Amino acid sequence: MSEGPIRHVAIIGLGLMGGSLARDFAASGIRISAYDTDDMALRHAHASGVVSGVLDATLAGVAEADVVVLAVPIDVAPDLLARVAEHAMGARLITDVGSTKARIVAAASALGLGSRFVGSHPMAGDHRSGWVVSRTGLFAGARVYLSAPDEAPDGLIHFASSLWTSLGGRPVVVPAELHDQKLAWASHLPHVVSAALALALAGAGVPRNELGPGGRDVTRLAGSSPEMWTAIARENADAIDEALAQTQRELASFRAALRCPDAGDVRRRFADARAWFER
Amino acid sequence: MSEGPIRHVAIIGLGLMGGSLARDFAASGIRISAYDTDDMALRHAHASGVVSGVLDATLAGVAEADVVVLAVPIDVAPDLLARVAEHAMGARLITDVGSTKARIVAAASALGLGSRFVGSHPMAGDHRSGWVVSRTGLFAGARVYLSAPDEAPDGLIHFASSLWTSLGGRPVVVPAELHDQKLAWASHLPHVVSAALALALAGAGVPRNELGPGGRDVTRLAGSSPEMWTAIARENADAIDEALAQTQRELASFRAALRCPDAGDVRRRFADARAWFER
Repeated sequence: MSEGPIRHVAIIGLGLMGGSLARDFAASGIRISAYDTDDMALRHAHASGVVSGVLDATLAGVAEADVVVLAVPIDVAPDLLARVAEHAMGARLITDVGSTKARIVAAASALGLGSRFVGSHPMAGDHRSGWVVSRTGLFAGARVYLSAPDEAPDGLIHFASSLWTSLGGRPVVVPAELHDQKLAWASHLPHVVSAALALALAGAGVPRNELGPGGRDVTRLAGSSPEMWTAIARENADAIDEALAQTQRELASFRAALRCPDAGDVRRRFADARAWFER
Repeated sequence: MSEGPIRHVAIIGLGLMGGSLARDFAASGIRISAYDTDDMALRHAHASGVVSGVLDATLAGVAEADVVVLAVPIDVAPDLLARVAEHAMGARLITDVGSTKARIVAAASALGLGSRFVGSHPMAGDHRSGWVVSRTGLFAGARVYLSAPDEAPDGLIHFASSLWTSLGGRPVVVPAELHDQKLAWASHLPHVVSAALALALAGAGVPRNELGPGGRDVTRLAGSSPEMWTAIARENADAIDEALAQTQRELASFRAALRCPDAGDVRRRFADARAWFER
């Protein structure tokens, strides 16, 4: 199933992820068909020469693609996957780029796509989104988690892995549930903490331009798409809740340390944080 | 007191701040005398030609400087200021670069330096520290808070302001207590939140290299100097405690919103955070 060069990739969703994939694939001579609900983005991508085939909302045109990529918010991905499944007769690989994996992998299995679907999660986000910020080389050096249904053949996972490697990514295969558990900490938690800090600053009347370079970095993710992150936070709510609870405890411990007459507790906390940073 | 060009600046402490000041001043032809407890840094700065006069620990050599800058951790600054006060007979301006202002401004007043001291806080930090990361242009575009004793003449504040402007900084004059109150939110809070997040991730066994670019930004300040930040956190503990308490409440609200069957609360929080980001 995984032999021969990739000639034609269909990409559903031309945001930061989908648009950047389209640019990278097109740059290596692969034909790109694409669909986006944002007609302007679609037309722009076509006019720029990155996208050669414009798909309609039925997605019937994915039939000709070797690889189909869903690059849409995770809450709409399962329904779109069902639509793709109807038409993607020629696809050797169907994948996505969402920040959670359990639900989409289960959906692929339920749709009978177990032998052709591998979920992907490239750790190459940005707080900005949309075709306008997409760029070549986005995935260079990025960790890319791959989560497949149990029934997926090894050859398929290998194919998905080599596809990401060809874009400069560093694939890591991980079961979908474990992925979501890990990413609640490694990605979703920093997003929510950044947003919560932004809300605290907003409440105190401190605008972002009064922050130094460090504070601006800590609050950068607060600029992320509310739609995208609402879907992620809700889908992985239990694991994120646990991570947030632990972060609350760390803040409480910091406050207790600040009340100590002795500086040792505060210093130990900052030193432990830096030890983690430097490891 | 503030007339004529600056010919000679003495800098106590050649870390990121002091070293960068030395480089900027030296680049515009000003003679630099300097002292640092780190003999290697001092020798390196001298060998590089940035520092022309090496001071000894008595700081007697500051007598010849027009301007004296304390660029040392805030917990040692008041004692050093007392030593500087003994010798800085020729100084038109004595200033510092610390992240808190109330204590050093009060110390200056108590030492009878009210007519020559203006505290400075350039918002140009980095999680790294030391002479090795100092660089020219560090202060370009940076907000620089200036807090002076009540008795400081307007001309002195104007002189301090023009000195920072000459380095590309954007001076903002603010009373010392208000500065510390504001900075608890705008700077100290993001530092502690970044460190607390790092500790939560460390506890969960998630190394920093598993974070995406966003998560790495949120945790960058966790790499800051524990010594420097322990001193800051303790000196401004009450105001930081209030800011941390508010952040805990925001995290609690996020958790409650995640438990709602309706997505509206989570979306509103992310949307409010982004509205603050974009303002």
